[in-house]
Amino acid sequence: MTKFMDVHHNMKGITEDQLRAAHKADLDIEKDENVHFERAWADPKSGTVYCLSEGPSADAVQRIHERAGHKADEIHPVPLTI
Amino acid sequence: MTKFMDVHHNMKGITEDQLRAAHKADLDIEKDENVHFERAWADPKSGTVYCLSEGPSADAVQRIHERAGHKADEIHPVPLTI
Repeated sequence: MTKFMDVHHNMKGITEDQLRAAHKADLDIEKDENVHFERAWADPKSGTVYCLSEGPSADAVQRIHERAGHKADEIHPVPLTI
Repeated sequence: MTKFMDVHHNMKGITEDQLRAAHKADLDIEKDENVHFERAWADPKSGTVYCLSEGPSADAVQRIHERAGHKADEIHPVPLTI
């Protein structure tokens, strides 16, 4: 299993409730791909959202995000962590 | 205090030891700006490093990164966190 950081752009104005709902939508189906979404951080002003996850591949992470209605713009494996 | 996610590009080939040394260089001086660097994630292949910090401003975060020898390419406040 690998850790991934993915990035969503164009999320300007996202609210705390919307971030929470989007994260829950991921959690609800993540087991289908053996993925786990651990954390999420959002900057409503620039419209950037970062998600930290663990899973078997970037494709698996993307499949969950797509099915949940918010495809990621970038997904980077982050094998080094502090 | 605000949380910030900053991004460094052009860090291709970064090793675990180099990431740890860079993070320690931040920690050694972070108190000067009332900043705290909490986590860091690196993708040696694409050369991307993400740092999560807390501090009074993006400028304060950048001043520590600059003095430590690794200026960030982007710094986003991330007021929303899960």
